[in-house]
Amino acid sequence: MDRIPILRMGEFLLVTIQVDMHDRLAMTLQDDLTNRIVETGARAVLIDISSLEIVDSFIGRMLSNIASMSRILDAHTVVVGMQPAVAITLVELGLSLHGVRTALNVEKGMELLKGVLTPSVDGSAHGVAKA
Amino acid sequence: MDRIPILRMGEFLLVTIQVDMHDRLAMTLQDDLTNRIVETGARAVLIDISSLEIVDSFIGRMLSNIASMSRILDAHTVVVGMQPAVAITLVELGLSLHGVRTALNVEKGMELLKGVLTPSVDGSAHGVAKA
Repeated sequence: MDRIPILRMGEFLLVTIQVDMHDRLAMTLQDDLTNRIVETGARAVLIDISSLEIVDSFIGRMLSNIASMSRILDAHTVVVGMQPAVAITLVELGLSLHGVRTALNVEKGMELLKGVLTPSVDGSAHGVAKA
Repeated sequence: MDRIPILRMGEFLLVTIQVDMHDRLAMTLQDDLTNRIVETGARAVLIDISSLEIVDSFIGRMLSNIASMSRILDAHTVVVGMQPAVAITLVELGLSLHGVRTALNVEKGMELLKGVLTPSVDGSAHGVAKA
């Protein structure tokens, strides 16, 4: 396992994290994802973490980094499928997932993004919600 | 890693296989997937194998089994993201992936499925294409 696949679905990129992340894998994911956003002009990234039973500060920082990088490239990031125990641990560890939106599952994440990506009255989609 | 996540997207279920399959994981995936099809009434299953560098007879049989089980539950199966080397190996091994449709990527797989799932002139969506 040397890279995590990134699936394109229209304006969205979907990443399903199923394996334990280590430094190099996280770096590769960040590289791949930013390249794919530029290549495809994707407006949003969905990261499914339903397989993860533990989200430590390393993963938390990686998610925040991905959200920040995507934001600079004009793409929103939504983390979906978080297990209840993970939410508890995150709060207990004091990790806030800065700049990361969350949704219960992929469908709800897509709904959220469709709302965010809809151009506002003044024709700009960018100012609707801050990541 | 004790189970592979199944993501619901409308009428579709999406499975991304990223890890080496072994007997128990394959059995769990078959159980989970058939249960999810029944629970959600999904009409199609997309299986992304873009991370797999090897598809041996075990994986090939699993994919065929999933397609057959899904078909009985009135859901179509499309395998997407196959690497060129995998296609070569499959043919060389004489594995035909019986009953399994393929598409180049998730987007093309969804397009294929939308065509298949559109009701035909006589109002039935079932007879349009045989799996």
